[in-house]
Amino acid sequence: MTQTAWPDGVLSSGTSCGIKADGAPDLGVIVADGTVAWAGTFTKNAAAAAPVTWCRARLGAPVRALVVNSGNANACTGRDGDTAVAAIARETAASVGCHAEQVLVASTGPIGVRLPVDAVLGGIPGALDALDPSVETFARAILTTDPKVSERRGNGACVVGVGKGAAMLAPNMATMLAFVVTDVACEAAELQSALDSAVSRSFDRISVDACESTNDSVFLLSTGRAARPRDGSWEHALEGVCADLAEQMVRDAEGGTKLLRIRVEGARDDGTAAALGRAVASSVLWRSAVHGADPNWGRVVSALGSADRSLDLTSLRVSIGAAAVFENGAPAGSLDDAGNEMVDDEILLLCVVGSGTGEAEILSADISPEYVTLNATGTS
Amino acid sequence: MTQTAWPDGVLSSGTSCGIKADGAPDLGVIVADGTVAWAGTFTKNAAAAAPVTWCRARLGAPVRALVVNSGNANACTGRDGDTAVAAIARETAASVGCHAEQVLVASTGPIGVRLPVDAVLGGIPGALDALDPSVETFARAILTTDPKVSERRGNGACVVGVGKGAAMLAPNMATMLAFVVTDVACEAAELQSALDSAVSRSFDRISVDACESTNDSVFLLSTGRAARPRDGSWEHALEGVCADLAEQMVRDAEGGTKLLRIRVEGARDDGTAAALGRAVASSVLWRSAVHGADPNWGRVVSALGSADRSLDLTSLRVSIGAAAVFENGAPAGSLDDAGNEMVDDEILLLCVVGSGTGEAEILSADISPEYVTLNATGTS
Repeated sequence: MTQTAWPDGVLSSGTSCGIKADGAPDLGVIVADGTVAWAGTFTKNAAAAAPVTWCRARLGAPVRALVVNSGNANACTGRDGDTAVAAIARETAASVGCHAEQVLVASTGPIGVRLPVDAVLGGIPGALDALDPSVETFARAILTTDPKVSERRGNGACVVGVGKGAAMLAPNMATMLAFVVTDVACEAAELQSALDSAVSRSFDRISVDACESTNDSVFLLSTGRAARPRDGSWEHALEGVCADLAEQMVRDAEGGTKLLRIRVEGARDDGTAAALGRAVASSVLWRSAVHGADPNWGRVVSALGSADRSLDLTSLRVSIGAAAVFENGAPAGSLDDAGNEMVDDEILLLCVVGSGTGEAEILSADISPEYVTLNATGTS
Repeated sequence: MTQTAWPDGVLSSGTSCGIKADGAPDLGVIVADGTVAWAGTFTKNAAAAAPVTWCRARLGAPVRALVVNSGNANACTGRDGDTAVAAIARETAASVGCHAEQVLVASTGPIGVRLPVDAVLGGIPGALDALDPSVETFARAILTTDPKVSERRGNGACVVGVGKGAAMLAPNMATMLAFVVTDVACEAAELQSALDSAVSRSFDRISVDACESTNDSVFLLSTGRAARPRDGSWEHALEGVCADLAEQMVRDAEGGTKLLRIRVEGARDDGTAAALGRAVASSVLWRSAVHGADPNWGRVVSALGSADRSLDLTSLRVSIGAAAVFENGAPAGSLDDAGNEMVDDEILLLCVVGSGTGEAEILSADISPEYVTLNATGTS
């Protein structure tokens, strides 16, 4: 397990408060020495969970603590959900010694199940008693399978992140959550701008189930104890941590066995390239083929042509690893060569869609029969 | 097997020409006594197959015959593909006694594989020798599993249709094809308008894999031997045949075991309702839950909220069969009741998304582990 520590001035812990029937850790807290600036990016789903609504309303103002539970998304839970979030913030604030509005809340788990708020409230004192500098117990409280941790240090500054799940990756755990802490001093607005940029090139570039969940959230807290390097190294480190966590999420997708890098080049702009990459990542047929190492590139071309109805086939080039499969409007190379490129655990699919300068890389995973089995039960 | 016959003046047959390695029927022809008016709706995929491009260019002008092969989509095959289509039209025209431009061509099967055009050309004479009024051998030449046939007769007019697959339903058979023949006299433009209307309320309302394939085509031929009823019964019959074939396609989806009726009401307009229904049908997570009879309605709300970011949860009502699961912004009813509603082979999901007058019903199917297995291999 990781020995990673948060930046100075931030502690965390994790515990079991009883949301999960099997007694697994399901409650994590992060507490700062004093109030800190923060930024957040949240799901745009209209069914955003109660904790997302709470946190959005806190954007711009400093915070002191963050509470996250797993095992329950507190989404689609109506006014009960909002009441639960406020109670959790109040309880935490009372123990830490701050205002309820200075406590962020996050949740992940099944949608539409009433949050057992008494269990959470009962668990908070114990979690606050167990605070330490290591990310370990906190990471365990939100994990589905393996803890996902990433850090970058250098130039007198550091960025440390912990993540959980990717959008709709795991059964009933419909959430991508990431918690990043840095020591770099930043205004909230600068922090938000840096986070937006990093997220757009990391978490926004992974796609496993296409659907944006009710709880997706990325938090960035800043202790302000270090000067902001002027050479761009901090922004680079922040993007590196986010990209690292995003890739770990895809690699760890339940029911997936392979990492699929979908690289789109030659598009009109980066946004178009990303949209085309996502269209390929959304093809269940192509993801099934990836699972079976079947070089069924027709499904890739069909997905691209369905997403961009003005795609010019004569300027499209598709290759799998080192094997060209489509160019000049017609099949190219040998299917055997392409099939050999698909045996690895990591597959690179390159789609050059024109002569523009737009490019993007979308990370996805295959789909396995086990994925369906995992997702076919569990709610009732 | 069906004893359905085409309207008078139209004959068909089916045979094996050697595209399919196992010797299964893979070539069908339809021939009219004389030239007939026709209409067609085709995939909007930019990677549309060579036969689709050929047929689009023939829209508006009368035709005499139609040739369809299974086992090969002739898509993404470059100039070779276009050359093959022209050769097939010429060969058929020479035997039938018409111009090559009066022959429609359709294909279904794997994308990106060169069409063995000599096999098709060799099979055409035999297919033309075997013409008869029954739809049977024609239907068998294009089927994946069971033949799909529908007819409506009345008011002195008739509509007969044969269909195959749904969009991206079956492994490597990435196509929905339908061939409809009527005896009602219509100008080509009227025929097109009637077909567009019928398709928008039938084939456009099924969704199994979200991706529009390279070969999707619906043909409507009119012998013109009957007067067009003035009471709307013919348009109703045409829509009935299309809806019937569409439902058969979903019921017969390979790797699917349940029919899912997603009914959306209260939307701004019908188009919005259909888009929301398709968003739910595109959720692999929800389709997995349907497979396991798991009433995981949170995945439905999440799919709706991701597709319409201004969705108002407080006016959303969701029910599965007779069991309400979400209303007034919060969970409703019992999960056990909802689970009981999901045991059947046919499931009705009702989503009332507001107080508008827009409504739509999208037909879809569950996804099973077998679906992934079926689609994981087969190309090389």
